[in-house]
Amino acid sequence: MTLNTQLQEYALRVESALDARLQHRSIEPRLQEAMQYALFNGGKRIRPCLVYLSNQLLGGDVRNADPAACAIEAVHSYSLVHDDLPAMDDDDLRRGKPTCHIAFDEATAILAGDALQCIAFEWLSDDDSGLEAAQRLQMVRTLARAAGDRGMVAGQAFDLAHVGRPLTLEQLQQMHSHKTGALLTAAVELGALSAGIDSGDAWQALKRYGDAIGLAFQVQDDILDIEGETVTLGKPQGSDLAQNKPTFPALLGLTQAKAKLQHLHREALAALEPFGADATALRQLADYIVSRDH
Amino acid sequence: MTLNTQLQEYALRVESALDARLQHRSIEPRLQEAMQYALFNGGKRIRPCLVYLSNQLLGGDVRNADPAACAIEAVHSYSLVHDDLPAMDDDDLRRGKPTCHIAFDEATAILAGDALQCIAFEWLSDDDSGLEAAQRLQMVRTLARAAGDRGMVAGQAFDLAHVGRPLTLEQLQQMHSHKTGALLTAAVELGALSAGIDSGDAWQALKRYGDAIGLAFQVQDDILDIEGETVTLGKPQGSDLAQNKPTFPALLGLTQAKAKLQHLHREALAALEPFGADATALRQLADYIVSRDH
Repeated sequence: MTLNTQLQEYALRVESALDARLQHRSIEPRLQEAMQYALFNGGKRIRPCLVYLSNQLLGGDVRNADPAACAIEAVHSYSLVHDDLPAMDDDDLRRGKPTCHIAFDEATAILAGDALQCIAFEWLSDDDSGLEAAQRLQMVRTLARAAGDRGMVAGQAFDLAHVGRPLTLEQLQQMHSHKTGALLTAAVELGALSAGIDSGDAWQALKRYGDAIGLAFQVQDDILDIEGETVTLGKPQGSDLAQNKPTFPALLGLTQAKAKLQHLHREALAALEPFGADATALRQLADYIVSRDH
Repeated sequence: MTLNTQLQEYALRVESALDARLQHRSIEPRLQEAMQYALFNGGKRIRPCLVYLSNQLLGGDVRNADPAACAIEAVHSYSLVHDDLPAMDDDDLRRGKPTCHIAFDEATAILAGDALQCIAFEWLSDDDSGLEAAQRLQMVRTLARAAGDRGMVAGQAFDLAHVGRPLTLEQLQQMHSHKTGALLTAAVELGALSAGIDSGDAWQALKRYGDAIGLAFQVQDDILDIEGETVTLGKPQGSDLAQNKPTFPALLGLTQAKAKLQHLHREALAALEPFGADATALRQLADYIVSRDH
């Protein structure tokens, strides 16, 4: 399943915005190349799409969403580069291409990741859009909380600490709500912030949607590791199983894991109900997340 | 030479502020321990001292400088953790203690570094002081620009790319102005920002001071690598020479390197002249930087 036209348009929009922001950056060309390699890696740009769609749903100016869309993709990209390192998941392939430390070298990959995290906060603070300083500061706070030691990094650390050790379902969910969910929910929040919304019913509904698709994303990842094909996944099929990683299918069985995925899908759609037809694209993104084949 | 009483007070102040901010942080205790280990590593807290001293020189409320003092020390600490990694400088000792990846493990060190960078931006944006959002946003921008691919990370990448290759004096200075200087100058700027100052003669004078001590810091580092003693340095004396790293003594000879250090020292003091007796502590910090033995 591929992204539909509107999602493709937003993916192109963020790529164009990223490209413009990356021109003439560093004194060190190899660092810059590695950052570009990591950012333009064939990803689906799901987080930027969530930023744009939330912005549009709440009546924002799409241009105000560009900095946050770029920033969250930079953080996502940095996390992939560092996760793939030999000391972490030790992956040579990412979406069928050599990972950053294979294409360059380990030191460059570490530094490119460091720089990509930093640039996210530079972009949010550099934003010369019509947004107030207080809104932009709240975006910095939202992204930092989601990405750091109480969000994404905590999830990754928890994951590494528990490889080969049994997890309860609750622990597995907590791990993923940090590792993957925090940034997906932050994408929705950043989109709302870029439209000037930071509380109220619509804000809460979008957060519920973000939480549901965040977890659904991971459940489908786990299912794909069992059912997907290596060539489509861009990484060896069965690698989670081989590494004895705790997954939803391992804990629940494949059938129950799929039932959980459908339940989360329905939760995501239910959260969007108040928005009616305006939320069609967000619904399609939820559909995509639960039915994607890589 | 040790820091004088006022500098020691500020070092204690930032340690207390860091300690308070680090309570009950992460779901992953090992990550939190590694972050604490990296932050409380016996460092002199020179960057936080610069933040506080600039704040005080410009008549700021010292409490408004706490978030920036903590943030810049977090960024400095993260950079040491990542610089020490096997794929980077591969150092087992830092200030006489095992480096983070030795005390914990490589994956934890990578993640602790990632989290420490992120937490810096969280602390700047979380600040509930009397500062305006626009000021705090400018702090985020200042720190991000100094730390990223046009600042500190660029310097580190340039350094790694040129190990064993000859550098001109200009290239060496450019490398250090990125690798070390950018963050030291940012410390002075953050202090000024925390006092509500972001332009004018005092701002420019402080920046000149920051630039001069930033470079002086590195020249003295290079001299210490030749003349210092391993036990005082906390790392093997002569390790730059052994690794064939470009240094000021290697390019200029030891005598000229020392002359350069004295010249930078005078430049730093000259920049402080307009402030008269109010800048005594900043002068003492400059004295400390050029005469420290580790």
